Amino acid sequence: MSVPYRIEASTGLPTDTKGPQPKASDRIPIIARPFVSDRAKKTLDIVEKFVEEECIPADPIYAQQVGQGVVQRFSATPPVMEDLKKRAGELGLWNMFLPKNHFKEGAGFSNLEYGLMAEMLGKSHTASEATNCAAPDTGNMEVFAKYGTAEQKEKWLKPLLEGKIRSAFLMTEPDVASSDATNIGMKIHKEGNEWVLNGSKWWSSGAGDPRCKIYIVMGKSDPDNANVYKQQSVIFVPAETKGITIKRMLSVYGFDDAPHGHGHITFDNVRVPASMMCLGQGRGFEVIQGRLGPGRIHHAMRSIGAAEKALEYMLARLNDPRKTPFGKQLHEHGIMLARVARSRIDIDAARLLVLNAAIMIDSKDAKFALKEIAEAKVFVPQVNLEVIDRAIQAYGGAGVSQDTPLANMWAHGRTMRIVDGPDEVHMVQLGRNENKRGKWLLEKIEWQKRRTAEVAKGYGEEVRDVLLLERQHSKAKL
Amino acid sequence: MSVPYRIEASTGLPTDTKGPQPKASDRIPIIARPFVSDRAKKTLDIVEKFVEEECIPADPIYAQQVGQGVVQRFSATPPVMEDLKKRAGELGLWNMFLPKNHFKEGAGFSNLEYGLMAEMLGKSHTASEATNCAAPDTGNMEVFAKYGTAEQKEKWLKPLLEGKIRSAFLMTEPDVASSDATNIGMKIHKEGNEWVLNGSKWWSSGAGDPRCKIYIVMGKSDPDNANVYKQQSVIFVPAETKGITIKRMLSVYGFDDAPHGHGHITFDNVRVPASMMCLGQGRGFEVIQGRLGPGRIHHAMRSIGAAEKALEYMLARLNDPRKTPFGKQLHEHGIMLARVARSRIDIDAARLLVLNAAIMIDSKDAKFALKEIAEAKVFVPQVNLEVIDRAIQAYGGAGVSQDTPLANMWAHGRTMRIVDGPDEVHMVQLGRNENKRGKWLLEKIEWQKRRTAEVAKGYGEEVRDVLLLERQHSKAKL
Amino acid sequence: MSVPYRIEASTGLPTDTKGPQPKASDRIPIIARPFVSDRAKKTLDIVEKFVEEECIPADPIYAQQVGQGVVQRFSATPPVMEDLKKRAGELGLWNMFLPKNHFKEGAGFSNLEYGLMAEMLGKSHTASEATNCAAPDTGNMEVFAKYGTAEQKEKWLKPLLEGKIRSAFLMTEPDVASSDATNIGMKIHKEGNEWVLNGSKWWSSGAGDPRCKIYIVMGKSDPDNANVYKQQSVIFVPAETKGITIKRMLSVYGFDDAPHGHGHITFDNVRVPASMMCLGQGRGFEVIQGRLGPGRIHHAMRSIGAAEKALEYMLARLNDPRKTPFGKQLHEHGIMLARVARSRIDIDAARLLVLNAAIMIDSKDAKFALKEIAEAKVFVPQVNLEVIDRAIQAYGGAGVSQDTPLANMWAHGRTMRIVDGPDEVHMVQLGRNENKRGKWLLEKIEWQKRRTAEVAKGYGEEVRDVLLLERQHSKAKL
Amino acid sequence: MSVPYRIEASTGLPTDTKGPQPKASDRIPIIARPFVSDRAKKTLDIVEKFVEEECIPADPIYAQQVGQGVVQRFSATPPVMEDLKKRAGELGLWNMFLPKNHFKEGAGFSNLEYGLMAEMLGKSHTASEATNCAAPDTGNMEVFAKYGTAEQKEKWLKPLLEGKIRSAFLMTEPDVASSDATNIGMKIHKEGNEWVLNGSKWWSSGAGDPRCKIYIVMGKSDPDNANVYKQQSVIFVPAETKGITIKRMLSVYGFDDAPHGHGHITFDNVRVPASMMCLGQGRGFEVIQGRLGPGRIHHAMRSIGAAEKALEYMLARLNDPRKTPFGKQLHEHGIMLARVARSRIDIDAARLLVLNAAIMIDSKDAKFALKEIAEAKVFVPQVNLEVIDRAIQAYGGAGVSQDTPLANMWAHGRTMRIVDGPDEVHMVQLGRNENKRGKWLLEKIEWQKRRTAEVAKGYGEEVRDVLLLERQHSKAKL
Repeated sequence: MSVPYRIEASTGLPTDTKGPQPKASDRIPIIARPFVSDRAKKTLDIVEKFVEEECIPADPIYAQQVGQGVVQRFSATPPVMEDLKKRAGELGLWNMFLPKNHFKEGAGFSNLEYGLMAEMLGKSHTASEATNCAAPDTGNMEVFAKYGTAEQKEKWLKPLLEGKIRSAFLMTEPDVASSDATNIGMKIHKEGNEWVLNGSKWWSSGAGDPRCKIYIVMGKSDPDNANVYKQQSVIFVPAETKGITIKRMLSVYGFDDAPHGHGHITFDNVRVPASMMCLGQGRGFEVIQGRLGPGRIHHAMRSIGAAEKALEYMLARLNDPRKTPFGKQLHEHGIMLARVARSRIDIDAARLLVLNAAIMIDSKDAKFALKEIAEAKVFVPQVNLEVIDRAIQAYGGAGVSQDTPLANMWAHGRTMRIVDGPDEVHMVQLGRNENKRGKWLLEKIEWQKRRTAEVAKGYGEEVRDVLLLERQHSKAKL
Repeated sequence: MSVPYRIEASTGLPTDTKGPQPKASDRIPIIARPFVSDRAKKTLDIVEKFVEEECIPADPIYAQQVGQGVVQRFSATPPVMEDLKKRAGELGLWNMFLPKNHFKEGAGFSNLEYGLMAEMLGKSHTASEATNCAAPDTGNMEVFAKYGTAEQKEKWLKPLLEGKIRSAFLMTEPDVASSDATNIGMKIHKEGNEWVLNGSKWWSSGAGDPRCKIYIVMGKSDPDNANVYKQQSVIFVPAETKGITIKRMLSVYGFDDAPHGHGHITFDNVRVPASMMCLGQGRGFEVIQGRLGPGRIHHAMRSIGAAEKALEYMLARLNDPRKTPFGKQLHEHGIMLARVARSRIDIDAARLLVLNAAIMIDSKDAKFALKEIAEAKVFVPQVNLEVIDRAIQAYGGAGVSQDTPLANMWAHGRTMRIVDGPDEVHMVQLGRNENKRGKWLLEKIEWQKRRTAEVAKGYGEEVRDVLLLERQHSKAKL
Repeated sequence: MSVPYRIEASTGLPTDTKGPQPKASDRIPIIARPFVSDRAKKTLDIVEKFVEEECIPADPIYAQQVGQGVVQRFSATPPVMEDLKKRAGELGLWNMFLPKNHFKEGAGFSNLEYGLMAEMLGKSHTASEATNCAAPDTGNMEVFAKYGTAEQKEKWLKPLLEGKIRSAFLMTEPDVASSDATNIGMKIHKEGNEWVLNGSKWWSSGAGDPRCKIYIVMGKSDPDNANVYKQQSVIFVPAETKGITIKRMLSVYGFDDAPHGHGHITFDNVRVPASMMCLGQGRGFEVIQGRLGPGRIHHAMRSIGAAEKALEYMLARLNDPRKTPFGKQLHEHGIMLARVARSRIDIDAARLLVLNAAIMIDSKDAKFALKEIAEAKVFVPQVNLEVIDRAIQAYGGAGVSQDTPLANMWAHGRTMRIVDGPDEVHMVQLGRNENKRGKWLLEKIEWQKRRTAEVAKGYGEEVRDVLLLERQHSKAKL
Repeated sequence: MSVPYRIEASTGLPTDTKGPQPKASDRIPIIARPFVSDRAKKTLDIVEKFVEEECIPADPIYAQQVGQGVVQRFSATPPVMEDLKKRAGELGLWNMFLPKNHFKEGAGFSNLEYGLMAEMLGKSHTASEATNCAAPDTGNMEVFAKYGTAEQKEKWLKPLLEGKIRSAFLMTEPDVASSDATNIGMKIHKEGNEWVLNGSKWWSSGAGDPRCKIYIVMGKSDPDNANVYKQQSVIFVPAETKGITIKRMLSVYGFDDAPHGHGHITFDNVRVPASMMCLGQGRGFEVIQGRLGPGRIHHAMRSIGAAEKALEYMLARLNDPRKTPFGKQLHEHGIMLARVARSRIDIDAARLLVLNAAIMIDSKDAKFALKEIAEAKVFVPQVNLEVIDRAIQAYGGAGVSQDTPLANMWAHGRTMRIVDGPDEVHMVQLGRNENKRGKWLLEKIEWQKRRTAEVAKGYGEEVRDVLLLERQHSKAKL
């Protein structure tokens, strides 16, 4: 199979004007630079070039090659993707997500460094998969690398790392409030030397892809355990095991995200060998907590890339000479400039939050960065949605239609307020965590008030209210 | 005069619970740590201790010592302030604001390092002045240090650095839209070897203080200059020059901020020697631009300190055992926890924006950090106001009253959306700056579209719309 | 063709609990009741019953009968719709939109009365068309009724009123900023006794429907007219005229809205007889202004119906016994209740704004209600989107998917901030209109200040500032 | 005592421009007009003229006559107020608040009609008291009229109706979460034929006025009652009873609101005769619920008046020819016009909500209008604060200072989110009330789904998911 285009063959982005545009490595916030190696900076610039010059132009072709009709779309393996993957391999852009301090299998970057690259990847629909950095495979590969047996690694991790198969993480269920993971109820019980699974999963993202061969499944193996965090287990289940049915795919605001997709899957007496249990029975929470941290950073940085792209589209629109409402180009309207500024500010604040969280993970692990990750998890999607929505409004009808990638980006961005726990759950947990110092703060403030009284005495004064009145009507009366 | 209290004499904050509370230096965001020296960390912790244990308890005493009645309040020199200053000197906390890479007179810290300290200072009404780090003296000292003659430095900078006199910066005028500094219209003309000033100034902050001895005044010396940025000059004017009248003081939501205050001042044929011109006639914009950058960072970091303090008050309230609406303490209400989380997230994002801007200044100068400073200038006050307002709502009536510092902090914070340029001006400028790359982005996106068409050809495909219809009614009819 | 179901045959909504639920006529805001006739109240209740018991259950069937694939979907005439129309006719629910004080052809209701019914219709995808009250036919019928010749009425208005054909209004163009209608550029010139049209239109809603037979087209017939509001004309063009091509359909966040759809249409030397000019050459603005007013009210009231439906879905979710995050049903979480309240308040405020605007139109005409219509146009879609978004968040993954109507409703609602003029245009026009009294207000406030000074004299007082200082440093010094 | 000015003596507002300005009665929203009598319209116009031409000019004089210093300010009886009251009497503007369908003592207007007048009164600091329509006297007079004995009416209601004395309502307490009135804890016990009161009250608004002669006090008389809504009683207590001390006054963002003020009052064995119990022991909740409804409407309509005044100030500023930032007057900046529009829309929506609530009360009573009152209670203050804040921002420094009434209006407006129950309490109650229909809605939606299945059968169809897949990997494998 030939590669139908090559970066050398391309003329490259307009050069005369590109000249003054700073490269990705030049745009790293100054505060983050001490954490980025020269090698990462070079790679980052290659990622940017690859995304802008090869992936983004390929996005519409990918969409086209997925084809029409439900069955066709979820059987598709668009050739352009395979070519992009080959190309990414040639450029040395592969598996950048696996953090160097925990995994030897990756490209040797820190979470912070990969985060900067993920921002670039987030600008294109195809770029993450093209570089084998797409969710949910990234998190799944981490699980295999951490907890898999040698055999499991050979069978599943190896082809995943090579981008030959794909995987899904089956957690969310239609019948419970999955925002509270203790509710996850897929039944897992043991029969002989096998685990037997029964129940329903949905939002099994990636399950639509015909190359998706392995599921990592969370279920309830010990429903009576007094410790609700010990009831669940995580287990590996080959996608083609008997008893599994992908009933249907779920859409996101009208988009089906084929062939990746979001599956609604039923398990009817699905049997796997005992060895497929991950980490150990009842340790499901341990597995997902380790897995979700970096994944949230990846999502967040891709969202920031999406927001940057939306802002780019907005700026392009503001300078479209054909669009002159009320005799002025859009960039001459103060309302529009103020929205650009709002977007610029919020994106920059959001990026710093995520980068800080990534450095916290790098410095130790995801558990150590719980607060910082939650902050990014809540803040980034809201900013992203607002930025995209402003861009859509600037485009008017074109913004909501297929003529820009904005509507699709918005729909995807909207799910980010739900996946890996809805905003509300993270907010309340953050609030509860912050509240831990509440009692001490109450004591501190009371101590300071007492201290005020003591110090005042040193001046021969008594503390008195600024609006002291001490009016006793009764005295006046008597 | 004796120091009526000493830190040794104090019992210190409650220790049993204080134990686990991390110190200020432990709370520096991980992403900023490479920029903070060990010496700065140590100083930061001393600042925190000084603020929490000495300044905050002194705040109500200071307010009390200012006294009652307009004239009295604006003649006050509260003894507690002089004692705090002495104490700060003993602790080595003095003039920390003067950045080490530009001034030899300061304490040798970077803007970033002082920024972290300014956050602490922002928690107390008295702390900034106590450490000789209060606006507008800070910016004014920078002006003298940069542009003053040896004689002027001796006469004004020296006592300012020693905290013996105070100063004011007279820019805003009641009769024009001062948000656009080209409008500043105070008349400055030359007569012989003297400059003569006529006009009105207001929001002359600090002018109320009886110790305020020197004004730095912006005015129009060259109204006909074709370059509107060359019409203004900045000039030094002793406060006690003939012709100057402080007509009245301005209040901020009912607070008079005495004795510091905000003066409305008239100039009636005020004469100063030619040597009092700062930097050079027509160079007013140069002076204010150099002055405002770091000042905005100081304001921003103090605002973040205020926001943190408001959050501390809110958390204290949420844990007040006497407050149990509907049978639960306030911290058991999810709505309250979500607000705490929102505040936590926004403050942390705001802090990173400011620290990043401070590092930009440190790396070169304020002009280099124009975008980053503007971002912080807009983002921080909005966050600060929201955080304080949430705390006020949690306190109910106590929140709006004199029983907490919150109402005063809010009023002060509200001015931050106006001083040094209102939000709108910064937003439009940020937007305009961002828009500079608009045309290139338009070209880029169009290039990517053309590239898509080329790549598609490589697959023998033509790009077609996903909802292609091509229905020609007329054909059907014929 | 048989009607496959009948309301008599249905068991009706659960009655035991339905009992206490107030009917639509009972829920009319008390302030609006004097404007609603008993006949309208009765009809309103029938509309509600029809929508809830027949249209909403038919919605998924309609979607299913539209089928799969672009060409198929835009050729579909789902049988369930024809049955619903028959049923609506039997119930006397037909053409309720034509206001009684301007048209004899309608059902004899006022804009206010129809507005209340439109709210009910807005809860179902099929209800508006089923009662022949669907946009853009409604506005188009008004145009024909007002400006059509007898022949045109016979040919187009009659079958439209009977629901036998459909129509489209072609205004927006891809190549200009259509938010400013003076930009509309479709070329219209005369050759002999014919008008010739050249150009492109998009967002031609309804053009996808195979039964769409007539276009009402706005174009520029007099590009050099000094009065920019006289350059455009509106003209009738049969859909099957030679030279017209529907190139493609536009999607809205992934939804194609087939078979109705939103067409992108080209005109290549399209010729129509001179008699097809509407109202007169150069009078395009008159036509659209008359047409848009009531249409905005219809859109707004349907949006309110959508918001009510979203709130119903949200409340249903909050009471789903299977959804118990953190040990409590969703309706036991205060955050959720507060969101319900916010939605309730905003919807009720929005409804009153629209009803007030409708009464203004009824009292005279749409031009008289310009301000009120613009207010509703801006306020309602924002409320609607927020309410739907809250419901989506409460549903989590189910909310963004096809499992509830919410995602589709949101996408449709989002267009309402763009169609008939984007928010920004209406805001600036409203602001400009309001600003007309600015000068007088300035005078009034100045008069009041002078009056204060006069009145003070009556008390032997002079007005003085509360923080009067009048400190003259120079005097003190001399 | 002579009236130092008269409306006849005034030149009246500038007439040439006033001409086209519509009068208050012309500005009544069309939807509300059927509820307003001609007499009320006439009175409304007189109220407007009185407020604009007499009260607003008198506001600064009143502030001046209150004087300086805590003790002086809370002993003041500014002569201008007595003159305004005389003048209001002459104009027939007195006690308009007492609703005609419940009280014979008032001016004979409905709540709706008085609401419209209250909007006008809300534009001036002095107008409400000048017309004897000031809180808390209004609600207190209602209590006396409803529940007072003939003797109590003679002693307290009569002079209150004549504006000779003032009163306070003592409910909120510093030591409990008063947002939940069941917490109110002032001890009330019986000794012989006397009630004895012990405890603390604050936010006793009006208690600062030396003419405040009677307190209506809520306390806990039956702490062990199983029904928490029966534990509290309301009791009349003369202000000059022995044991009462006004310790201090509370400020609101730096404003003391003297002489009215907000008192912090202690009760130390305060004794009143048994006859002073209002309505009956344990019936405190009945009393306050009847009292609060109309009061919330009054507050809300005054807030709307304040918002209108703020918008007027903003518009005046936008047309100040001296204010031309960046070469344009403020009204030429789109950002400013959009804010004007936002304010216009929100105020109009808010007004309709309140008027609708007032009509609900008029149609029956406050309990009947619970939902509508709560909606207005939450919505109006938020709108009011936003509108005032926008005006302040347009004024810059002048906005936060004493040079406009805006800062004071904002501070007062801010308390409206707290008094009579904070937003959160009303939101959760509204949400809980709305949630009552949740179960039925769940049933309805499920019924509709079942109905869909039945109807589909009529077409020989089965309901199937739009993204049906039914891919069974295991089968494919075998």
